[in-house]
Amino acid sequence: MSPPDWVKALKPAGQPGSELLAQERSQSNVDVDKLAELLHTRQALERQDRLLAMMKNDKVFDKSQNHTLGRTERIQRALAKGKRLQQLSVQHNWNYDDFYAANDLLGEPTPYGLHASMFLVTLREQTTPEQKKAFLERAEKYEIIGCYAQTELGHGSNVRGLETRAVWNQDDKTFTIHSPSLTASKWWIGSLGRTANHAVVMAQLYINGKNYGPHPFLVQIRDMETHQPLENVYVGDIGPKFGYNTMDNGFLLFNNVKIPHFNMLARFSRIDKDTGKYIRPALPALVYGTMVWVRSNIVLQAGSVLARGVTIAVRYCSVRKQFQDRDATGSVGENQVLNYKMVQIRLLPLLATMYALHFTGRGMMGLYEENQKRMAGAAQAGPDELRAGAELLADLHATSCGLKALASTTAGEGLEVCRRAMGGHGYSQYSGVGHWYADYLPNLTWEGDNYMLTQQVARYLLKSARSVLAGQAANNDTCRILKNYLSRRNKGASFDVLEQDKDIVDAFAWRASHLTFEALKHRDVEKRSWNSLLVEFWRLSTAHSQYLVVKNFYDAVNSPQLSAALGPETTATLHKLFRLYALHTLEREAAEFFSSSAVTTRQISLAQTTAVSKLLDEIRPHAVSLVDSWNFDDWQLDSSLGRYDGDVYPDLFRRASQENPVNDLVFDPYPWNANVLKNSPKSSKL
Amino acid sequence: MSPPDWVKALKPAGQPGSELLAQERSQSNVDVDKLAELLHTRQALERQDRLLAMMKNDKVFDKSQNHTLGRTERIQRALAKGKRLQQLSVQHNWNYDDFYAANDLLGEPTPYGLHASMFLVTLREQTTPEQKKAFLERAEKYEIIGCYAQTELGHGSNVRGLETRAVWNQDDKTFTIHSPSLTASKWWIGSLGRTANHAVVMAQLYINGKNYGPHPFLVQIRDMETHQPLENVYVGDIGPKFGYNTMDNGFLLFNNVKIPHFNMLARFSRIDKDTGKYIRPALPALVYGTMVWVRSNIVLQAGSVLARGVTIAVRYCSVRKQFQDRDATGSVGENQVLNYKMVQIRLLPLLATMYALHFTGRGMMGLYEENQKRMAGAAQAGPDELRAGAELLADLHATSCGLKALASTTAGEGLEVCRRAMGGHGYSQYSGVGHWYADYLPNLTWEGDNYMLTQQVARYLLKSARSVLAGQAANNDTCRILKNYLSRRNKGASFDVLEQDKDIVDAFAWRASHLTFEALKHRDVEKRSWNSLLVEFWRLSTAHSQYLVVKNFYDAVNSPQLSAALGPETTATLHKLFRLYALHTLEREAAEFFSSSAVTTRQISLAQTTAVSKLLDEIRPHAVSLVDSWNFDDWQLDSSLGRYDGDVYPDLFRRASQENPVNDLVFDPYPWNANVLKNSPKSSKL
Repeated sequence: MSPPDWVKALKPAGQPGSELLAQERSQSNVDVDKLAELLHTRQALERQDRLLAMMKNDKVFDKSQNHTLGRTERIQRALAKGKRLQQLSVQHNWNYDDFYAANDLLGEPTPYGLHASMFLVTLREQTTPEQKKAFLERAEKYEIIGCYAQTELGHGSNVRGLETRAVWNQDDKTFTIHSPSLTASKWWIGSLGRTANHAVVMAQLYINGKNYGPHPFLVQIRDMETHQPLENVYVGDIGPKFGYNTMDNGFLLFNNVKIPHFNMLARFSRIDKDTGKYIRPALPALVYGTMVWVRSNIVLQAGSVLARGVTIAVRYCSVRKQFQDRDATGSVGENQVLNYKMVQIRLLPLLATMYALHFTGRGMMGLYEENQKRMAGAAQAGPDELRAGAELLADLHATSCGLKALASTTAGEGLEVCRRAMGGHGYSQYSGVGHWYADYLPNLTWEGDNYMLTQQVARYLLKSARSVLAGQAANNDTCRILKNYLSRRNKGASFDVLEQDKDIVDAFAWRASHLTFEALKHRDVEKRSWNSLLVEFWRLSTAHSQYLVVKNFYDAVNSPQLSAALGPETTATLHKLFRLYALHTLEREAAEFFSSSAVTTRQISLAQTTAVSKLLDEIRPHAVSLVDSWNFDDWQLDSSLGRYDGDVYPDLFRRASQENPVNDLVFDPYPWNANVLKNSPKSSKL
Repeated sequence: MSPPDWVKALKPAGQPGSELLAQERSQSNVDVDKLAELLHTRQALERQDRLLAMMKNDKVFDKSQNHTLGRTERIQRALAKGKRLQQLSVQHNWNYDDFYAANDLLGEPTPYGLHASMFLVTLREQTTPEQKKAFLERAEKYEIIGCYAQTELGHGSNVRGLETRAVWNQDDKTFTIHSPSLTASKWWIGSLGRTANHAVVMAQLYINGKNYGPHPFLVQIRDMETHQPLENVYVGDIGPKFGYNTMDNGFLLFNNVKIPHFNMLARFSRIDKDTGKYIRPALPALVYGTMVWVRSNIVLQAGSVLARGVTIAVRYCSVRKQFQDRDATGSVGENQVLNYKMVQIRLLPLLATMYALHFTGRGMMGLYEENQKRMAGAAQAGPDELRAGAELLADLHATSCGLKALASTTAGEGLEVCRRAMGGHGYSQYSGVGHWYADYLPNLTWEGDNYMLTQQVARYLLKSARSVLAGQAANNDTCRILKNYLSRRNKGASFDVLEQDKDIVDAFAWRASHLTFEALKHRDVEKRSWNSLLVEFWRLSTAHSQYLVVKNFYDAVNSPQLSAALGPETTATLHKLFRLYALHTLEREAAEFFSSSAVTTRQISLAQTTAVSKLLDEIRPHAVSLVDSWNFDDWQLDSSLGRYDGDVYPDLFRRASQENPVNDLVFDPYPWNANVLKNSPKSSKL
């Protein structure tokens, strides 16, 4: 629907978006390039340019109809995109980081998503060398295409409640995989619905009628040639979802399907083929490794997920003008929306949060990798070192649970805050935020529901508190802050959160510790039921995770490497972001800082009325530069509102009038005519 | 994809959902039928049955593919649904309530949506008798199909900033409607994109070069026969949105289009045809009437919008079992999810909220209708009565702003809380919540952005506070609570919120009044800028609106009519819902109750640790009955998880395996094969 000439001649009224963003960029002393390099590394920035050059103009990666097509068309296009990515991966010999970055630029899941992540990771981590040769090598070549089938229709978080069975048959050395009921159907399994020909199936292992709990088995489910389901396998896609519709989340039922002994993933637990004896893993905790890895990754990603929304919203709110300032005298024209305090208070703390989560995510991944290395070394060393490694893994597990919950909830809810801060246009899919939010939401539920996870954190904190009280504190940060708190409990705190950054960290530690010992009292002294404490545990976990984020952010902005890399001005702005994140969080959780006496009433009130507001003023001029540093490409954002050049309105108009197939329809608008379209009697069937 | 026999034979494991819901229903003494009648009236319940009988089995209203089709197919089907509704409306002589109820059962917008609401309302309220005859009668017959074109690409909340012009031409007694720039394009206009042949266009009225501000004009935009845009009109659909995709929100540009004098909607302002003189409306405030009506309706609807989500979540969480209670001894089986405190604290306060909003909405609509009557009477009476009516309308305007913002934000965010409380399955479109949430979200932005609106409330409260200080308080509730606060400010408060329900209402009034005088001090004494106070104003508006909800809910549950209609047991449960809503809100806003000294620290702490928890225990057994009373039909909910009979898992399975077109696709899964589907070379083009 090409516009007539008089429309083509129209320009937006007022100052062009490009001018407004240029002004924004010129008024900030943030060193965008250096900051980008610090956040992403030069290597990653170069990778992005390289990948974009390949992908941007490839028609298969076209994004223009992502929001107009129905699900069957979308998922076929997503498979085509996935195929092209894999072809490029082979052709250019991509490593994992290349592949991951390319997927990220694409911006939507493909049906290979769970093959490329959980399936390959599980095969890597839970197989014997022989199994690696038989399975992993073919899986890496996409001959075996797989998924990780754990969740069932009736069983999500409670892995021990899984119904699918793997019964060991000593006579022919096989397992019989069986779904005893409808609720035993595997459900939600990514890449399973239409794509996978194999599945790692988590099933209750039975030997001689005895249940040994859930174990992983590799099961072929579809024919390698025809791709039809094998006999006694019923498999399909579970239907449309709120988002993530380019993924074929699937269901899977087995009717007594036999698989060989070799197909039990046997790096940890296994069955002796000859005797049928179950051999316990040296260290059962090791099997949690995959989950910790996945959760750590979610924390790391949460920062950049949120950064997409904040980038779009900050740029748009710099271009969008609405109302004259109420106190302005004379006619000064409409004000940039980002100048309004009510917009700043929604967006700038999120800007601080994306940095906070990024630095926290980095810290988490560092811890995980460090521990993996340590344990790899320990495997040769002996049981003591292995036990130490396992204890560290437990610590990491608890920490990753709480941070995963906090980070993904913050990022998910933050995206919706960004969308709404953009007013009406935020609701358009051309804003680029809505679908991104919808696709991201599963992160709040999968790999441990965010509310469920807080119980694990609380259990860990209570256990740590008991060990501290018993004088058996471990040498880690959690025990350290609990001990500090205990030693000063009867003297009270005197943190100066408005003047001393270090005191902010200590105040967050104090509050988390206070809540820990309160919860411990309720559980151990007052003997209250676990269930009655769940809300308190959730608050406790949130408090502890917020402490960790504050601490990681503090450490990052105070590291000599950071100031050396960025120079004093940019570093100073990052310090302000730290304070904004911390004080805004303190203000939102004011009731707990009140009741734990971590901070004086006066300072909380001043934080609210003065300190946060002043930080908003100070950060405001750098907002556009601080999102520019995240280095999203326009093609990646796919957003009219978040364009780097600020040409918001012409782009919205172009898409609506020229990329919108609804405008090809000519309605017959009269209700008494059954036809929906003019001159199209066929459509009356609708 | 019909399942094989061995799959058909499978049943869900454990206690069937139907048994669990039957248990739930038997354990409650809430009189579901009487409560349903109180909430909806018997007439409305009978209407629903009558409409459902017509609609349920009509194939045009089929909902099964709502979440799988692309936008062009969906909007055509929605138009077909709209046509059928209008046909039924004529055939059965529906009144407005019938038509509205039928739309509600359908559960999605149709392209006639804005014609049937804003367009008709505007024609009714803003036209002269002659215009009613010429326009309204034809519009009611759907010969003229219209929309209400106010918002522009560059201008939303700030109506005075609209660019579209209507220039009066004295020589030929016409107006020239013109869009001077791209940002002048009308944008977001419902029913405009493909459906309307006329538009009420809000345009800046110019007479002899002087701007008289925005006024409404009726403009024909498409040919009545061919439905093609008229010359110099550029109109179309604005593209895909986060939700609401069955509506053709549109854009519209004019290139000097002439319309006759008669087409300016002239009930209030008008132009003398002979002299070209502008005639001021007797009472400019009257034109706000439509907005107050629309906002009041949003408040009224917010309760039932939320009730849909809560109904689904409460039923599903009663059927869903997960984990054994941690303190249970022996093997007692998995626990109903609704028994967990962490689920209760998310769902039961929302259950209370849907009742709170319902009763508040009723109060609002009552006020509006009362005022309309009063003003209709006053029109004959004289200027004093008209002024009194206008002052009341201003009060209503402020009240409706704040409540609209609070109610729609609460309902929108509450739906997402419901969805997440259902864990993984909440993300499936078969949950029935996600799309309902996405379609509802515009309510948080349109008819006044929820954040913007809070400024109007604050301005009104400051003005009221000034009048109270000057001894010129009006005789209304706002001034009453401000006076009460002033009279006790130097004595302090002593509200017993845990024992006296009336004290809860007073405590909310105290907090709102405290914040009002604080804000007044900042503005009038400290002379702080309006912009620097926006966050405070937002908090103030929220506090005042929460007071209004608490008050309306209190009045409703304490009315003799209610207890007479429901009997003592059901009334007692509604009292508990009142307390839960109020104390949970108090707990969430604890910091403000602390700092305003409305309630003692001890009582806030007890509310948190004891009172709310006890109320959760007390309401829990009635949860299913309390949602049943809302009387949603399964067809309306269109939810596997919220089924009245509790057969959640078989329904999810049936839809996934039999209503899901993705399962008709056979993928070619290997990346080196360009074809996306097996045996379908055509698809390789994708």
